[in-house]
Parts: sequence; C-alpha cells; structure tokens
Amino acid sequence: MPKANPKAGPLPVVDQQVTNKIVGSAKDMHDKIVDGRKPSMKFPLRSLSNVRYTPKKGHFEMAGKKKERALTVSTVKTFAQTLRMISLSKRLIETDDFATKRDAYYQTKNWEEARCDEQVESDTIMDDIEAYFGVTKEALRFTPDEHGGLVAGELIVEDFEQGSREPLAIDCTKFGSGAYGISPSTIEEIGFKTKAKFILAIETGGIFERLNRHRYWEKANCILVSMAGVPTRAVRRFIRRLADEKKIPVYVFVDCDPYGIANIYRTLKVGSGNNAHLNEFFCVPQARFLGVTPQDIQDYKLPTHPLKDIDIKRAKDALKNDPFFQHYKEWARAFELLLKMGVRAEQQAFAKFDLNFVMDTYLPEKMAKTDKFLP
Amino acid sequence: MPKANPKAGPLPVVDQQVTNKIVGSAKDMHDKIVDGRKPSMKFPLRSLSNVRYTPKKGHFEMAGKKKERALTVSTVKTFAQTLRMISLSKRLIETDDFATKRDAYYQTKNWEEARCDEQVESDTIMDDIEAYFGVTKEALRFTPDEHGGLVAGELIVEDFEQGSREPLAIDCTKFGSGAYGISPSTIEEIGFKTKAKFILAIETGGIFERLNRHRYWEKANCILVSMAGVPTRAVRRFIRRLADEKKIPVYVFVDCDPYGIANIYRTLKVGSGNNAHLNEFFCVPQARFLGVTPQDIQDYKLPTHPLKDIDIKRAKDALKNDPFFQHYKEWARAFELLLKMGVRAEQQAFAKFDLNFVMDTYLPEKMAKTDKFLP
Repeated sequence: MPKANPKAGPLPVVDQQVTNKIVGSAKDMHDKIVDGRKPSMKFPLRSLSNVRYTPKKGHFEMAGKKKERALTVSTVKTFAQTLRMISLSKRLIETDDFATKRDAYYQTKNWEEARCDEQVESDTIMDDIEAYFGVTKEALRFTPDEHGGLVAGELIVEDFEQGSREPLAIDCTKFGSGAYGISPSTIEEIGFKTKAKFILAIETGGIFERLNRHRYWEKANCILVSMAGVPTRAVRRFIRRLADEKKIPVYVFVDCDPYGIANIYRTLKVGSGNNAHLNEFFCVPQARFLGVTPQDIQDYKLPTHPLKDIDIKRAKDALKNDPFFQHYKEWARAFELLLKMGVRAEQQAFAKFDLNFVMDTYLPEKMAKTDKFLP
Repeated sequence: MPKANPKAGPLPVVDQQVTNKIVGSAKDMHDKIVDGRKPSMKFPLRSLSNVRYTPKKGHFEMAGKKKERALTVSTVKTFAQTLRMISLSKRLIETDDFATKRDAYYQTKNWEEARCDEQVESDTIMDDIEAYFGVTKEALRFTPDEHGGLVAGELIVEDFEQGSREPLAIDCTKFGSGAYGISPSTIEEIGFKTKAKFILAIETGGIFERLNRHRYWEKANCILVSMAGVPTRAVRRFIRRLADEKKIPVYVFVDCDPYGIANIYRTLKVGSGNNAHLNEFFCVPQARFLGVTPQDIQDYKLPTHPLKDIDIKRAKDALKNDPFFQHYKEWARAFELLLKMGVRAEQQAFAKFDLNFVMDTYLPEKMAKTDKFLP
C-alpha cells in the first residue's frame, strides 16, 4: 500500500470527480450485497464491432453494447481483481501517487488468490475499469511506462512542486537548446498559460531541434511539440487539453508517406480503431494537416524515395477501409496522387535546398494559407 | 548553404578548436596540391580488428592501424565527398547551426557528381571525418535524429539563449512533474552547476517518474537521468561531461537481466565494440552498478521471470567473449549466479512490497554501501 503523502488542502477537482465515481460504485455494490442481491458491473464492449464513426464529434466512439460481469463462481477471480484494482486507484489518488501498468501488475502479486500471473491480465482489468468509469487510466493514476514527448516555445506550464504543492510556473521559452519533457503521470493536472497562435506537432526530433534552436516559436508565436513518431497517449492528451483550453489550432507536420498520414496524423486526430472508449480523451479533432502533402512534393520539387510495398498496401487500406479517409474527398485525392507518383518524401527533404529552408520558406508559405490545410 | 546567424562575440572554445583542426588539414592538402604532390588523408581503421581493451583507461580504444585515402581516379568521388562534408561542418560551426545526419544526406544532393545516393554513404563519410579529426560528430555539428533523455534534480544547466547568446540558467529542480529534455545538438556546449553527490542513471521511465515525483533527488541530493533503455549518444555524453567536470560518481540502476547488464550498463560504462574511436567521448568509466544485482533477487526475495533463451545466450556470450566482463571476477560470479537461478527481475519488481519501497528502502540500503557496487 502506498504511504500517505500528505498534501496541503483538498483534492484537486479532477481527483475529487474520480473518487466520487469510485465511492458511488462501491456503495452501489455494497448495497446490493446487503440486500442479498448479486453485485454486478456493466462494461462497454471494447471491440471494433462496437465502434461508430461520428464525423461531427471527430473521433471513433463506442456504440452502445455492454457486457455485464456479475459475481458468480466462474467470475469470482476477475471480479475480485477488478475491485482490488479500483481500490488501488482510490488509494493512489488519495496519496497523490501513481503506478505504472507494470507497478500495478507487481502490486497484484500481494492479492493472494486474486494475483495476476501475466501483465496482460492486470492491463485488461485496467482497460475495463477505464471504460467502466469513462475516465482515462491517467486520471485513475495508472500511467504507461513511456516517454512523453518534448515541448518548446510560447507556453507556461502550470504545475505544482511535488510534496509542498507550491504552484510552479514552467516557462517553455527558457530551456535554451533543451526542452520541457512532458510527464505522463500528471497529464490531467497541469494548467496552461499562453498567447501562442497555434501548436505545431512535429514528427521528427531533427526538425523539432532545428525549429527550437532557431527560435521559430518566437517568430511564428507558437508552441512546438515533438511527437517522435506515432504520438504516445501523454503527447495526444497534452495537445488536446492545451488546444481545448486555449482554443488554439493544431497543425501537424510529418513525412509525406502513408505512415505519417494514416498512422501518425490519423491517430492524433481521430484516435485508433481499438480502444475506442479512449478516443474521446486522446484524439485531437482540431488537428489539421500542414504537410508534407503529396502536392508539396510537386510544388517544391522535393527529393523523394520510391514507395515501398508496405506503403502502397497501407495507402490502399486507408482508402478502402478507413472511415476517416473515406469521409474526406481531399484525402482520397491526396492518397491517389501519392500512389500515382509512386514516391514518398521526408520532412527533412527540404534540407536539400538549405538547412533552414523549412523554417525560412516552407513553413511561412504554408502558414499564409492555413485554410488550404488538409482536414 | 546555411544562412549566417550572427553571434555576439567570438566562437566558443570547443568550436574554435574544431575549426582550427579543419583549417589546418585544408591548408596541408592545399600545400600538397600546389607542390604538385597527391593530397591524401589518413583515417584510423574502424573495425573490431583494430580495437584494444585498456582496463586502466576504462574503455575500448583504437589500436594504431590506419587506412590512407589518396586522391586517385578511383577515390576521387569519396575524396570530394569527404572534403565537402568537412567544409559543411566548418560552415555549420561558423553559423552556429547543426545538421542531423539526415539533413546532411539531403545537403549532398546539391553536390552534383559527388552526391550521395543513400544515407549510408554520407554517414560513413561522417564516421571517417570524426575518426580523422578525433572529435565527436556533435562537435562537428552533425547530430543524430534521436531523443536525448530526461534529467531532473539538483542541477543547473548553463546554456545560451539561441540567437541573442544571452546566458541561461536552467534549474532542473523546477520542472514539477516534468523534466529537462537534453538536446542532442548542443551537448558539447552546455555547462553545469551542481552540489549533487551523485548521478543516478535509470533504465525505465516508470522508475524515473516515481523518483522525480517524490523528489528523491532532494532527499538523496542527486541528479536523476532517464536513459529509457540503451542510452543514446547524447545521454552518454551528457552524463560523462557532467561526471567529469563535477567529479561526482555515477550509479546505474537497471533491470537484473543480461540486457540491462551487458547492453545498457556495459555500453554506458565502456562503450561498444564497433565505433571504438568514439568510446573515449561516449563512455562513462566512473559508472558503478547499483542494481538490480542477482544477489538482490535473493536478498529481497523479488518476484522474477524465467530467463529466456536469448537471455541465456547473451549471458554466456558476455562471459566468454566480452573483455569487460572477463576482466572483472565479480561480474563473472554475478552472471554465474544469474544463470544458476535461471531467472531475471525488473527494477519495478520492488512494487510488489510497496510502490515506494524502491525509494524508501531499497535505494537507501544500497546507497549505505556504495563500495559494494559491482564495477
């Protein structure tokens, strides 16, 4: 059991909301037992067969199917595990602590008959609880064991000093050549102060470094986020909360290949097919595609590489099966152009002309017509 | 060609040293040509057959073999590429810019007949130049396109505001739940101010988050570095420079398995077998192994997993072929115990007892006898 870590003052609002849900559900179950009825929990069915695409909301979401877990002889272990995991979450919140998914798995080792033999068991229980309460695992204080991405530019992150809970203002213009590393464990708690005009989400560390080192964020009055490939949950949630609260647009700058478009951009914008119960929190519907577009390859005469078989398969799959790309004719046209050209181009390809061409020419030219960005 | 980025004042010392080397070698070649002699360059032979293990120096190093590249009909392209790459490096230094390896590859596209068709060509030329001048690629302003690791704790990083070159002091105790992200591109330029007693290099983001969030760095007066697996060049160089300049010890905390020991720890401490010309800069000879040790598995009765075949192979390889592990009887004994037990344990396994057991019990107990750390 985590040790008490006394905090000054009451629980933050987000924590209070989650604890209320936990206590409410526990009370409900307790009442049923006292009444001599079987306690049960209803979970939304987490599978592609229970997913709906809603363009207006901007992300895949769960259709209504639910599965019920009632306390019976055959479900007793899972039922006990679920309750213990919920109880662990409550303790984590009350002690202002967190557990990685791996930590939580090891904690189950003390649950005697209810212990998990593999991490996949405890992970599944967490997924269930997350869907059950309709809040993120992070809000339940379970965090993935991952890097959280880097941030630089016109943003002040409002956090608390751990322990004393003294407020802390972290100025993301003051890191020189370094950057602010997002913490996956407090992604729901931090606040934001900014006058930036937009967020630029970048695929590669190389371009992020270049723009940061040359203070592009100052010239363009923006916030730079390095995604380093497909963005982690922490990065997606960070961008989403920042964009929502400050009502600023999000522009995405990735390689022009099916991976950059269909994996990185699509996941950031509308979420993923499985885990649809999360997309509500982890997608960024306001994201728009700055580039590199297939049209840019022609307009800027970029150096290219031939599309690989896997690229072609991915592009065709997206056109044929992905409700997001099916919805937007612009994307269908862009993919068709890419397939016709048979090539891909990287965001670093602008370095052919001049190392800072991307900053001095490409980005300003694109930013002059943001209404032309792909949806 | 990168645009001029005027700086206040003369070049920093590290830059001046590199430019002097470049100008010296260019002058030498120019003189030869004027004299009617063939210009040539001598590179240390970069291969395992030219590597020496020197326990006293603490890293693998190059033996004396060199290869000569003289200007002939068959070498003219490589020769030209080498000179252009050196010239690019000089311009990057003078304009206070940098190029990722990918950027540099795209720059070669303008070199007409000397252009590189694949990035492996331009990378090889960079490796040659690095060995030729005996400085790091980073000092030549070529940076890998990678994340640089996270830092938290009792450290002030001294950097410059980009552009204005105003000094900037970055306090790594002031990031709340976040952290300072190391920039791979200025790893040679930043300074350090600290009264910390040691550096703790950590394998997983999960443990780093836990120790950061609970301000372990304050209790233990130390600096935390998250390596996130095998440390990148930037992380290794950051730790090395910090440990050298501040004369503080480096303790390493990784999973107890052959990967944590033979890949992560060994690479951090003595470097790798290939690229031995780099180990001088990128190893951390003062590193000592805090844990998790095979003995800890017994002493703390940790939950374990069986060793996989690849683990067993890796451990046996280390015992049989790795000069580092052959040199230290303690490591041979530790590996033999691990193989005998047939299990491995993760640094997060302490979470079985209590999420903060690692911080409240394990680390203090280990830190009370640092002289017992494995070499």
